[in-house]
Amino acid sequence: MEIGSVNHETAGLFVSGWCRIKALPEKLKANVIEVIKKAKKLGQDDPRRVIHSLKVGLALTLVSLFYYFRPLYDGFGMSAIWALLTVVVVFEFTVGATLSKGLNRGFATLLAGALGVGAHYLACLSGEKGEPILLGLFVFLIAAASTFTRFFPQMKARYDYGVLIFIFTFGMVAVSGYRDDEILKLAHQRLSTILIGCTICVVVSIFICPVWAGEDLHNLVAVNMEKLASFLEGFGAEYFKIEEDGERVLIMIDDLQAYKSVLNSKAGEESLANFARREPGHGRFGFRHPWKEYLKIGALTRQCASQVEALNGYINSETQISQEFQRNIQIFCTKMSSESGNALKELASEIKTMTYSSLADCHVENAKTAVNDLKTFFKAAMLENIDLLEIMSATTVASLLIKIVTHTDEISESVHELARLAHFESVELLHGEL
Amino acid sequence: MEIGSVNHETAGLFVSGWCRIKALPEKLKANVIEVIKKAKKLGQDDPRRVIHSLKVGLALTLVSLFYYFRPLYDGFGMSAIWALLTVVVVFEFTVGATLSKGLNRGFATLLAGALGVGAHYLACLSGEKGEPILLGLFVFLIAAASTFTRFFPQMKARYDYGVLIFIFTFGMVAVSGYRDDEILKLAHQRLSTILIGCTICVVVSIFICPVWAGEDLHNLVAVNMEKLASFLEGFGAEYFKIEEDGERVLIMIDDLQAYKSVLNSKAGEESLANFARREPGHGRFGFRHPWKEYLKIGALTRQCASQVEALNGYINSETQISQEFQRNIQIFCTKMSSESGNALKELASEIKTMTYSSLADCHVENAKTAVNDLKTFFKAAMLENIDLLEIMSATTVASLLIKIVTHTDEISESVHELARLAHFESVELLHGEL
Repeated sequence: MEIGSVNHETAGLFVSGWCRIKALPEKLKANVIEVIKKAKKLGQDDPRRVIHSLKVGLALTLVSLFYYFRPLYDGFGMSAIWALLTVVVVFEFTVGATLSKGLNRGFATLLAGALGVGAHYLACLSGEKGEPILLGLFVFLIAAASTFTRFFPQMKARYDYGVLIFIFTFGMVAVSGYRDDEILKLAHQRLSTILIGCTICVVVSIFICPVWAGEDLHNLVAVNMEKLASFLEGFGAEYFKIEEDGERVLIMIDDLQAYKSVLNSKAGEESLANFARREPGHGRFGFRHPWKEYLKIGALTRQCASQVEALNGYINSETQISQEFQRNIQIFCTKMSSESGNALKELASEIKTMTYSSLADCHVENAKTAVNDLKTFFKAAMLENIDLLEIMSATTVASLLIKIVTHTDEISESVHELARLAHFESVELLHGEL
Repeated sequence: MEIGSVNHETAGLFVSGWCRIKALPEKLKANVIEVIKKAKKLGQDDPRRVIHSLKVGLALTLVSLFYYFRPLYDGFGMSAIWALLTVVVVFEFTVGATLSKGLNRGFATLLAGALGVGAHYLACLSGEKGEPILLGLFVFLIAAASTFTRFFPQMKARYDYGVLIFIFTFGMVAVSGYRDDEILKLAHQRLSTILIGCTICVVVSIFICPVWAGEDLHNLVAVNMEKLASFLEGFGAEYFKIEEDGERVLIMIDDLQAYKSVLNSKAGEESLANFARREPGHGRFGFRHPWKEYLKIGALTRQCASQVEALNGYINSETQISQEFQRNIQIFCTKMSSESGNALKELASEIKTMTYSSLADCHVENAKTAVNDLKTFFKAAMLENIDLLEIMSATTVASLLIKIVTHTDEISESVHELARLAHFESVELLHGEL
């Protein structure tokens, strides 16, 4: 009986195991299809990703074949390896990041190499016994001090990679047992390979479908403003459940919630601005384009996004709203919201087209008028029959919208400052000239 | 006359130039003092930074001296350089990050090495003319495909470094002109040096004052809750300008504004959670500690921080507030705010001490009672003599505080879930046992 049940169990295990094995190809197929779908979406969302991958492949193939056909020193040895490593590590998505890493690598290697040779000489002078002690001490001190500098926020943002290369090169040169003439040969070899690797990276990065960090920052700031605008344009209809011809105005929830990504945009904007500063002038952007202004606009946009996030909490609010009161303030609130949205959309398009018009100012003025109208209404409102609890949610929405109008005004001013510094074209002037 | 003025100008230039040169040492001295001050502050803020720097120095010195005294293959050549590079690149601030990079480096090298040898053989089979073409094609395809995988968010978060090493190693092995026996020697050499480098990193990282990513995440989540708590505890007094014994209660503005850093904490928390998963059990944290729960708590805390940011806009609000109305709701608002703050502080301390008590629940209940009291007051409020505009700001503050109480309740529940999953000790039970 027991044996039978054990047999039974074993058989059961076998069957379930067999089922699982049989299901394996199916599962694998499903997984592969899933990955392919995701990859397709990644590529469609930003085709530059595919191009970047091909560019990396090209740069690596170029450097590989270069060293394959021209074994410069000791066959396909050290030098080719350094060039390969340089390409793999230096080639980044944007031109600015690639330039920044290349410069970091070059200068750090030069500086550390010189220091390392100095340390090597000093250690040699102290005799056979003192040499390893002194060398160890040098490596320890330089490595510890350099690592500590990586905690400085400015160093971290701009020279982090350079510090790593500095530590590595110093250690390598200082501790190497080479004779003097060999060290010079090594230095020459390493610098030339880094130069070749960096040159290939920079050339491929700039001349084949370049991705400029500056342009990315420029567009990111505009797109973030558009996301807020989408929310604000849809908010009125969504909050007041506005009906048109008896049917609810349906708004894509995805569109409304797109603003959430703005809340976490700080780090991305800062690193793009850092890289943008290193880029040569390109297209519509001069060498001294005021990249810092974008950070200011970005910070104000995030502040506005925080208010929008608070506002979002009142969509589908469960509190009963007094119908009459709601009808009264609906027109003001919808106007504040949509005019702010329009202003932001207009400002975003001003940035995108690098033109300057007074259209955004008009929208801001309209929004401000709505604020004043609302305030006048609030002053004159007859509150005898109204339950404060019922109007609390609507009052809060109104109050948050007033803040948003103020923020929009600030954003508008900082965009105008950008327009002034970056010499945006005035659209009115063009019309006037026609 | 003209010559005189030119002379005069030249003299002026000389004088101003001389002044500048004379001021140079002063300026340099000021700069150096500034940097030293900053460094001191960085070290005092987190002494683990100093220890980390010393640890990196130690690890590098160890590996340098190891290869200095034991020239394994061809003197202090390739192998030592790989080991040095491994230490420089793999040694990170936390144990989890170091482990993650070490594993990435190891596995990527193994996989790419095997693939590279395969590609090398295949290319050799196709004759002298076909070899470079095939090799170039392989390198191109592998590099492009691997680079594209770096755009997958999960890959980026966990295996980014591994993919880089994979591309590099594959290219190196595939294109190398070595004979078969040399390739095996190279592979052995490279793997052994990576092993030695990684071992030294991991040993130094774990056994000398370890910095655990998990513990950092644990503390970060608690500290972020404390920052919100500080704001909420101070908000009532600050907004209502409460006076005690005729003197304004002075609150440190720095304390109030500390919450701002919570808004941008997402990326940091996610990367810590990623590393924490790789860490072995340590101290109070088991191997299967529920790190994902911290991300949930973090997300809720950020949502609450957004409401706090909106609330912050009403401190020092210019709108005239009706004195009478303000006095009436002051008690409810202050209570909602301070009880939420107390609850958050209590929850933070529960996380920090890994204990579990019902104290936070009490505070949440008190806050909820205040919400209900306020609602009752609002329902019964006599509004005849009140200007809606004057009470708008106060109503908004009340409404935002109600949202904050809801968020606090959610945070409290997710902390309880963490307490359940991570088996926090119950404090009541301990008291009962005494």
